[in-house]
Amino acid sequence: MSEKQAVLFANEAFYRAFADGDLDAMEAMWAREAPVACIHPGWNLISGRAEVMESWRAILESANRPAVKNHGAQAFLYGDTAFVICYEALEEGFLVATNVFVVENGAWRMVHHQAGPTAPPDLDEPDEAANVMH
Amino acid sequence: MSEKQAVLFANEAFYRAFADGDLDAMEAMWAREAPVACIHPGWNLISGRAEVMESWRAILESANRPAVKNHGAQAFLYGDTAFVICYEALEEGFLVATNVFVVENGAWRMVHHQAGPTAPPDLDEPDEAANVMH
Repeated sequence: MSEKQAVLFANEAFYRAFADGDLDAMEAMWAREAPVACIHPGWNLISGRAEVMESWRAILESANRPAVKNHGAQAFLYGDTAFVICYEALEEGFLVATNVFVVENGAWRMVHHQAGPTAPPDLDEPDEAANVMH
Repeated sequence: MSEKQAVLFANEAFYRAFADGDLDAMEAMWAREAPVACIHPGWNLISGRAEVMESWRAILESANRPAVKNHGAQAFLYGDTAFVICYEALEEGFLVATNVFVVENGAWRMVHHQAGPTAPPDLDEPDEAANVMH
């Protein structure tokens, strides 16, 4: 598996944890040693692992937890750091997210997530770009 | 100057170029070799240096160029990659931005910018966190 495939796989695992409301899987996805931050749609910045995980606990345990599907993920790699951009389809429209990952103990772990509203994307557009820093 | 100060300085230079409508300064801020991406508020993903710079040209040369002031910048460092989170005060309200930087030829250069709407931030909150990965 290439590093690009590995970070896209980590991004998928994040959305699977989100869609399943699986707090243990969500906690496992986030870095434990590297500093973390999160910006939920419309919220202010949250930083620090305890605060970020508390925000996910509140979202995942909410009766109104959104049914989220991610689409069109593209990975941008810079050595041991990467970000993935993807669209989040919700009942009320689309969000676009930046998900930042670092390698921690040999695995890609999330250090930042920002999602905000966007226009409906053209998801048929092919991704031919490599987006890997050499 | 610490690396944290250096990346915050690069973030300031980005907003100065934005506020001044200075396309040359904006082009100098963005990485030339590393892959770049940009998500303007409400837009879809733009990737590739030519496309990203074209979007900034359109924004900076627009008669409706927003008067943007950034506040409360916090830097998160991961070796030669970093992101800065800050608030953007506009006439119509606040945005929150994630600005990702990498070291290119010895200087911090932007590789990604996402801004989206947020609630008015509490800008008096002190930043005591180091947010540097060791």
